[in-house]
Amino acid sequence: MLARVWGACTQFTSATSVLGARAFGSEAFLPCNTAGSSLARSFTGGAAVSARASPLPTPTGRPRLVILGSGWGGARLVKDIDLNQYDVTIVSTRNHMVFTPLLTSTCVGTLEPRCAAVPIVGLRPELEHPQHKLYIAEATQVDPAARTISCTDTTGLTFEVPYDVLTLSTGSQGSTFGTPGVEEHAHFLRDVANATAIRSTLIKNWMLANIPGRTGPERCRLLHIVVVGGGPTGVEFAGELTDFIQKDLHKIDPARASDIKVTLIEAVELLSAFDGRLREYASQRLTRRGIKIVKGLVKEIRETDLTLDNGDKMEYGLCVWSTGVGPTTFTTALPFAKTARGRIAVDDCQRVLRQIHASGKAAEPSSVDDVERKDRPQEGSADHEDPSNREVVPNIYAVGDCCASATQPLPALAQVAEQQGKYLARVLNAKAKGGQPSAAQLSPFRYRHMGSMATTGGGSAVIDLGKGKSHLTFTGIKSYLAWRSAYLTKLGSWRNRFFTAGNWFMTTLFGRDVSRW
Amino acid sequence: MLARVWGACTQFTSATSVLGARAFGSEAFLPCNTAGSSLARSFTGGAAVSARASPLPTPTGRPRLVILGSGWGGARLVKDIDLNQYDVTIVSTRNHMVFTPLLTSTCVGTLEPRCAAVPIVGLRPELEHPQHKLYIAEATQVDPAARTISCTDTTGLTFEVPYDVLTLSTGSQGSTFGTPGVEEHAHFLRDVANATAIRSTLIKNWMLANIPGRTGPERCRLLHIVVVGGGPTGVEFAGELTDFIQKDLHKIDPARASDIKVTLIEAVELLSAFDGRLREYASQRLTRRGIKIVKGLVKEIRETDLTLDNGDKMEYGLCVWSTGVGPTTFTTALPFAKTARGRIAVDDCQRVLRQIHASGKAAEPSSVDDVERKDRPQEGSADHEDPSNREVVPNIYAVGDCCASATQPLPALAQVAEQQGKYLARVLNAKAKGGQPSAAQLSPFRYRHMGSMATTGGGSAVIDLGKGKSHLTFTGIKSYLAWRSAYLTKLGSWRNRFFTAGNWFMTTLFGRDVSRW
Repeated sequence: MLARVWGACTQFTSATSVLGARAFGSEAFLPCNTAGSSLARSFTGGAAVSARASPLPTPTGRPRLVILGSGWGGARLVKDIDLNQYDVTIVSTRNHMVFTPLLTSTCVGTLEPRCAAVPIVGLRPELEHPQHKLYIAEATQVDPAARTISCTDTTGLTFEVPYDVLTLSTGSQGSTFGTPGVEEHAHFLRDVANATAIRSTLIKNWMLANIPGRTGPERCRLLHIVVVGGGPTGVEFAGELTDFIQKDLHKIDPARASDIKVTLIEAVELLSAFDGRLREYASQRLTRRGIKIVKGLVKEIRETDLTLDNGDKMEYGLCVWSTGVGPTTFTTALPFAKTARGRIAVDDCQRVLRQIHASGKAAEPSSVDDVERKDRPQEGSADHEDPSNREVVPNIYAVGDCCASATQPLPALAQVAEQQGKYLARVLNAKAKGGQPSAAQLSPFRYRHMGSMATTGGGSAVIDLGKGKSHLTFTGIKSYLAWRSAYLTKLGSWRNRFFTAGNWFMTTLFGRDVSRW
Repeated sequence: MLARVWGACTQFTSATSVLGARAFGSEAFLPCNTAGSSLARSFTGGAAVSARASPLPTPTGRPRLVILGSGWGGARLVKDIDLNQYDVTIVSTRNHMVFTPLLTSTCVGTLEPRCAAVPIVGLRPELEHPQHKLYIAEATQVDPAARTISCTDTTGLTFEVPYDVLTLSTGSQGSTFGTPGVEEHAHFLRDVANATAIRSTLIKNWMLANIPGRTGPERCRLLHIVVVGGGPTGVEFAGELTDFIQKDLHKIDPARASDIKVTLIEAVELLSAFDGRLREYASQRLTRRGIKIVKGLVKEIRETDLTLDNGDKMEYGLCVWSTGVGPTTFTTALPFAKTARGRIAVDDCQRVLRQIHASGKAAEPSSVDDVERKDRPQEGSADHEDPSNREVVPNIYAVGDCCASATQPLPALAQVAEQQGKYLARVLNAKAKGGQPSAAQLSPFRYRHMGSMATTGGGSAVIDLGKGKSHLTFTGIKSYLAWRSAYLTKLGSWRNRFFTAGNWFMTTLFGRDVSRW
């Protein structure tokens, strides 16, 4: 087993020198420091400096690890990877990792957007070295034969990034389940831009509802907030919202604050992943705080109203869509095996599996069942003889929401992605060091569920630690404090910890921010 | 003199009851608190609550003071006005006052946007009472005969606001001096949205310049920042920018940071309002920090380049336009006397002057000279006989950038606006209390110049206290600390003071924020 895992990696160390030379050796590379380190010199230095193109990474002969995406999985890998063993290129559409659990708080001004954004350069100061690169661009395709990734930046400039080892951690996207109008009219709640847009709409509607001549029904619509999806994000957003309304907006204008309605639409059950007692608690808590919980499925969203599957119509001023997630178009286009839900199929060592060619048919994304049947690793077989190895794409790994193990399918959770990123860093670091890695370093990925948490507003939260028979659940203020401390310790940098703690303190003193620009 | 000033005010107290009844008495007003104070009640309360239109202010019989705009002048008036004497309606396009001196710091991530935004509701907690209103809308016209202001909100809903006393504090707008392309391609630096847009472009260009395949000239363009205008805003922005480049961006990628160029274009002289020695110091300091100071006039701005009056072309990635200010379209449309520069003409008690009808001609905005000649108050004449009083529009005042005194024209500065707001609050408070007001309360507005300050980057600033012969000037680190303390004490609320001091501390510890979304 160990030998098999290791076997796949020895390929890239030998390929490195060839690829390294091909990729970087032939370019007219200007060393980054010729211009000196002060801004002043760029004027005295003259034309030679100003005419140089964007420098490619300095070649060092080390394998180039390319990480696509900077979410929970990718950021953890960046944090843990040994930068003395790998030259790292990160390609991401964001220059920060989004600390998703704090997004709901930024929607209502409890926290500043910067609290929920952990700059990638802040994760590892060593990334400044010229052999490492961070490209803010979108990866569009992977060519496993040429070992390159095609990328496009926001200006439309396309470029290729060569890799020796590739990690796909491009995440998922909010799924609309084919519901018309979601993309156009509803707000997702998945990144910082979403959160600031929600906050902006929320405060805009609050202000518009106050204008003289605004009719009753229109005022009513503006002050109606609909949350679609009763998962942790939807529940936390609804909870934070009631805090904002009852504590902050109520101080500004009690009458208007009283006119705000919040509706939470859930097709199946609130917090379905949580223990029954917690589901009950959360549901009661939200109802007691004035949130109307509606069981139903949204059929269509229009600019100012939406329709449920039972035909009911609902006018809204702000609609937040936080149902499930699905694969991105990038994931869908990748020439690798996929699970039934369209995620990249990986083995239990996070290695990406080859697309299966049905006999006599063109290559098609395979289902998770196909993958399980054909690619299950054979315990105990030697690496070079293991038939399953033929199905692994060499040197391509995937972590987080974008992938799912064929043998151990896991939900799209931050903690899954983070643990996978941590695991992969350990595996890659061990491989790069050479020598015989320890069994612990190269064992398959094992997920340890750390529990589920969700705040429900009013300084309370539900925590489900779900440890087998002795199932542990917590509710109320202690859970809330645990929720805060847990996320504070999880935050990717001290800067973010300080900012977040500072913002919580300031909000306690002065209330949430209601300014809007 | 005193009698004259007071005379103008007695009109509104008598008009109040009539207007108050007309404006609010006839409307079907629903008291704001019928729905109770908790969100939960809006669901239990039923349909009656949800159908009510936006309530008008509760009538109290007090005169209604309408304040248009929430800049330095308007915000100061809001802060100082006696809310037991006046029912206040504020109409502003923003729900906050912009603390303009901190805008340059928010452009480079030293401060969060919320530091520079002081929520209006935070200025006076009493504004929550139902007799006061804050409308986020644009005032479009004033009808002095009907005593109403026409307003439009962002959805296009138009409404009228009645007033007993009106204060115009709608400020100015960035002047393009007719230069083509400024509005489309350059960034003004006048509000929080401008600052966040500048920061976003700055970081976007920084990231785009790193993409492989970006050509030398294009990279050079992206990393070229042009600041047009060498006043305090332009100088401070250029200075903060060099701090950001040399301290923060340099840490991330020294080579790229060295390739950034900053050009400051000024037609006449840097910091022309400052003492000669300070101008020299600032100019040397900026040059030493790598900023290229170009003397010239921008003739045209296109998407990626601009042309100077000498024909020179300059490619840029970010262009910040901080030259002078001019009147807004609202000011221009007002049916009152104007100065030569198009500002609302006021007498030395901040009272708005009537438009002068030249004999046989239609009403036209008059020049400042006209105003000075015809409207100069006649010292010593009794109020009811004073001919100048006929030229004053009853119960309409103006403060700040939107107006200029005919007898004492003052520059468009924050401290002028703030002192005028403070003065007007004192006058209006004294008038509303009745009885014989003291001389000090009703004397004409006298401007006290508190000095001029500008940071020049690298922990230094210039301060010009300009006290007549014993002209006091300061430079360097002490000035910088003075700059910080002065603005910290000036900030409109404790919340903002804490936030700003906290942000300064955090930036010292962790550097500026480079995340972008």
